[in-house]
Amino acid sequence: MFFEGSEKKVEVVVKAGGRSLRDLGKPFWEVIVAESQATILSTLSNEVCDAYLLSESSLFVWEDRFLMLTCGTTTLVNAITKFLESYGRDNVTMVVFQRKNEYQSHLQKTCVEDDIEALEQFISGTAYRLGHLDAHHNYVYHLNNHFEPDADDFTAELLMYHISGPVADYLRSEGQTAEGIRSRLQLSELLPGFTIDDFVFEPYGYSLNAIKDGYYATFHITPQERSSYVSFETNLDVEHEHAELFDRILAIFQPKSYDVISFDITPALTVPDKVVCISHYEQPLACGYQMTFRHFLEVVTEPAVAERII
Amino acid sequence: MFFEGSEKKVEVVVKAGGRSLRDLGKPFWEVIVAESQATILSTLSNEVCDAYLLSESSLFVWEDRFLMLTCGTTTLVNAITKFLESYGRDNVTMVVFQRKNEYQSHLQKTCVEDDIEALEQFISGTAYRLGHLDAHHNYVYHLNNHFEPDADDFTAELLMYHISGPVADYLRSEGQTAEGIRSRLQLSELLPGFTIDDFVFEPYGYSLNAIKDGYYATFHITPQERSSYVSFETNLDVEHEHAELFDRILAIFQPKSYDVISFDITPALTVPDKVVCISHYEQPLACGYQMTFRHFLEVVTEPAVAERII
Repeated sequence: MFFEGSEKKVEVVVKAGGRSLRDLGKPFWEVIVAESQATILSTLSNEVCDAYLLSESSLFVWEDRFLMLTCGTTTLVNAITKFLESYGRDNVTMVVFQRKNEYQSHLQKTCVEDDIEALEQFISGTAYRLGHLDAHHNYVYHLNNHFEPDADDFTAELLMYHISGPVADYLRSEGQTAEGIRSRLQLSELLPGFTIDDFVFEPYGYSLNAIKDGYYATFHITPQERSSYVSFETNLDVEHEHAELFDRILAIFQPKSYDVISFDITPALTVPDKVVCISHYEQPLACGYQMTFRHFLEVVTEPAVAERII
Repeated sequence: MFFEGSEKKVEVVVKAGGRSLRDLGKPFWEVIVAESQATILSTLSNEVCDAYLLSESSLFVWEDRFLMLTCGTTTLVNAITKFLESYGRDNVTMVVFQRKNEYQSHLQKTCVEDDIEALEQFISGTAYRLGHLDAHHNYVYHLNNHFEPDADDFTAELLMYHISGPVADYLRSEGQTAEGIRSRLQLSELLPGFTIDDFVFEPYGYSLNAIKDGYYATFHITPQERSSYVSFETNLDVEHEHAELFDRILAIFQPKSYDVISFDITPALTVPDKVVCISHYEQPLACGYQMTFRHFLEVVTEPAVAERII
């Protein structure tokens, strides 16, 4: 069974003095999420953030900011345009839309050029591709407005492909449970003090939202053998205070290749000898962030056997 | 301007004692080529082979075998089914269809699964993917029939991406000529004794067919800066007698990444220190060939700047 784990993602900051995004309430966000062809499965809240676990990925809502990720063949762009229409395009100050390269882009309902065209009906932006077309790459589109990110406004994404080892085996096994996955992810050590909301999909797949004060972290796992993909994303300081986090996650999933995408931060990484960086892009965005894309992979040591199609 | 250089390819061998494929004549092949949405630009013949240069790639016809390559958004599969219908599906003894991964697969008229389904209406085959879905890869589909290739029945493909250096610069320049390209490719040294037929496309692009007795070689060049692609293919013995050929071609085009695909031969290659092999697949095909896929690329040493989309 093939499932497209790679996400589309949007982060929006609204202007100061406007209506609180949290006060819009769950019914508002249900409508937005439905536009992407996903649904809200559950909600986790603390004093500053509402974290919604979706049928395809996640939505985090703060007073003045939201972050939404959707995977599969969802149409995140429709959720964004619906938000801009409902909340008012003039009331936003920062929009960053990202689309990761898909395993099977021809199965998607729109291509990134279609998405950009749809966004340009509402706002005026700039778009880039980081990474070569014929390898892992990431598209980014941002609103043409100079936003001043706070000094601790970081985003770091770790996207892992072709996971291996005992945790990967467990994630592909029957009878897996949320408890079993949580213990294998060593969650209490990875994300100490975080409140957790998670979901195990049938027959495979796992999503997790975690929040602690204004911090968030989210895992989305598509373990299927030949197209496995795990994404992790956080606004924790994975360069200094949590410099060990990405290495720990890599040790758990043992991916054969991985991408590190970051905004205003350089995640700490220990790159083993057998791993090479085959793509590295740095791009200042006029909306205020410095975006970095790096693609790493293990060099092969022996021939693989082909994947039989029919 | 974006142009999809990556080819679809078919090689067919017909049963002994059947009608000569060359005797079918140009009008027959014009119909077959039209089914793929290409046209014949010119013809080059010697005592054993007719080499047709197409508006999108090439067709080589021998007495009992033909090889057709088409690029762009052509529908090679329709040409194959038309051939099977016209010549008789029971009169073929070997069919190998390949489809390379595209830069922009969503722009293609069919996906490889559609192509396989179309072929399965006429013949029964087996299909594999060599290489991971999220990196360079090649699909192969073959007729389920045990064919015995001759001892010198080799095929070697060198597919080069992100070409650089003076020849790449010339290929992207205005006012280029066939003579200018031929001299930069050092054709008389690369392919001594071969007869040449070539074509310079507007505004860029170059195709070349070369034949010498039963040997063929073909170049197809899509030089566009951000999606450059050059394919070379031959049935020369690039493992022994012409062991220097692939290294010479790599030195001319200086690609940042390249794939080597081969059937019953292991092309000789000198891999520089800065280049790593990141994918290596070997697959025996029940139709009689051993297929090998290797994907090489240069490790990056400094960050690149993103590609601006809008």
